[in-house]
Amino acid sequence: MQSLKVIKIGGRIAEDEQSMDLFLKEFIKMKGPKILVHGGGVIATEVAGKLGIKSEMIEGRRVTNQETLDVVTMVYGGLINKKIVAKLQSLGVNSLGLTGADMNLIKSKKRNPDPVDFGWVGDIENINSEELKVLIERKVTPVLAPLTHDGSGNMLNTNADSITSFVAQELSEVYDVEMIFCLDIEGVMNGSRLITEMNLLLYRHLKGINVIKDGMIPKLDLGFQALKSGVEKVSITKFDSINDSNSGTRLIQ
Amino acid sequence: MQSLKVIKIGGRIAEDEQSMDLFLKEFIKMKGPKILVHGGGVIATEVAGKLGIKSEMIEGRRVTNQETLDVVTMVYGGLINKKIVAKLQSLGVNSLGLTGADMNLIKSKKRNPDPVDFGWVGDIENINSEELKVLIERKVTPVLAPLTHDGSGNMLNTNADSITSFVAQELSEVYDVEMIFCLDIEGVMNGSRLITEMNLLLYRHLKGINVIKDGMIPKLDLGFQALKSGVEKVSITKFDSINDSNSGTRLIQ
Repeated sequence: MQSLKVIKIGGRIAEDEQSMDLFLKEFIKMKGPKILVHGGGVIATEVAGKLGIKSEMIEGRRVTNQETLDVVTMVYGGLINKKIVAKLQSLGVNSLGLTGADMNLIKSKKRNPDPVDFGWVGDIENINSEELKVLIERKVTPVLAPLTHDGSGNMLNTNADSITSFVAQELSEVYDVEMIFCLDIEGVMNGSRLITEMNLLLYRHLKGINVIKDGMIPKLDLGFQALKSGVEKVSITKFDSINDSNSGTRLIQ
Repeated sequence: MQSLKVIKIGGRIAEDEQSMDLFLKEFIKMKGPKILVHGGGVIATEVAGKLGIKSEMIEGRRVTNQETLDVVTMVYGGLINKKIVAKLQSLGVNSLGLTGADMNLIKSKKRNPDPVDFGWVGDIENINSEELKVLIERKVTPVLAPLTHDGSGNMLNTNADSITSFVAQELSEVYDVEMIFCLDIEGVMNGSRLITEMNLLLYRHLKGINVIKDGMIPKLDLGFQALKSGVEKVSITKFDSINDSNSGTRLIQ
């Protein structure tokens, strides 16, 4: 099978122009077809603040009322997404910015308001892998914003790590998929020490003693889920080290 | 040749949900392949205002400094574009929201700052009609935001009427193109009377006596230019009357 890389960069990288340029320099060096997924929470919070909209977070997840949905649709689908696309074009990569609504790529279900009402937040139901395949075959590099739709005319705020993992899993049926979560730190850390290899046993142990916590937990859950579902290789690494095979944390089964 | 409709809706229609729904109801009734181009100046001005950014206009055109470019990239490329796409998907139309940066669809040149410095405003240089053709053949309905790129990594604010006319002209080589500018009034008016047919002579006469003025002038210039360059049919009509062949102003050579 042909190889495919599905790479996610977070909001902190997208926010800082210098980091973004460094990342893109490495990104374009990677051979073969690629899909880029980006976050943008940091910039969304900033824009919401300027607009006088308070960003309410529960367990690190954004509560998305109608006003906030407009902000994330603007910031993720417009500002960040198109900046990346314009930069990739200038670097000779024929990219296409997409949300889940575009070509019905990712359909989600609005999350049940019980027990916590997150508002216009979507849980992924379906990935249109056929359309992604067609784009890849046409040498187009999809750039996915963390937005999906419900099929009833509404956009939904959707976690970028989840989109990355679901897309990687879905496409692992037709490609040898490597999934990379990019961070602004070296990888999964135990204090100042990088964990170079991580399996489920080690993950559970380190989670149990609170060395792995907060946002790293759902990221690793999605990583192991991807591995289990047929994704060939999963790693978590610093955004400027994606081409260094000795860098970061590699997940193994 | 196969027929193709290139339809433009302005910011005032995009801004009002009820108008937008009325328009889309008519839009989906139209048979055959279509391209939708939207504006969004009204909402951009509103969002800029909330962000404390002053909207400076010269001769009805927005002066686009870096902050304003961010606003229009958010509002046109994100908010308005994705709302339309999500709605079209819910109506069974497989749409794809695009800016000129996506798949290098429209390349522009930053406008010469002399005599008036409009900032990050682009004049169209090239339309990638091949990519648009592929999308149309795959039954995808492109939804174009009024943004292009310069090929050097920058987005450019670009007039939606110009994009509509240039796309229509470019595609008239391979399709029988009908171009429709949608307004929130009946068409080109002389006082309270609708002008149902307009040729260059009548246009020049009415412009000379100041009956046709302001924003209608560049619109008609682009309309006549399109007709001259091979676009089959050009009309200017109310957004809810696009399927009524007796409505609006038809341009003739």
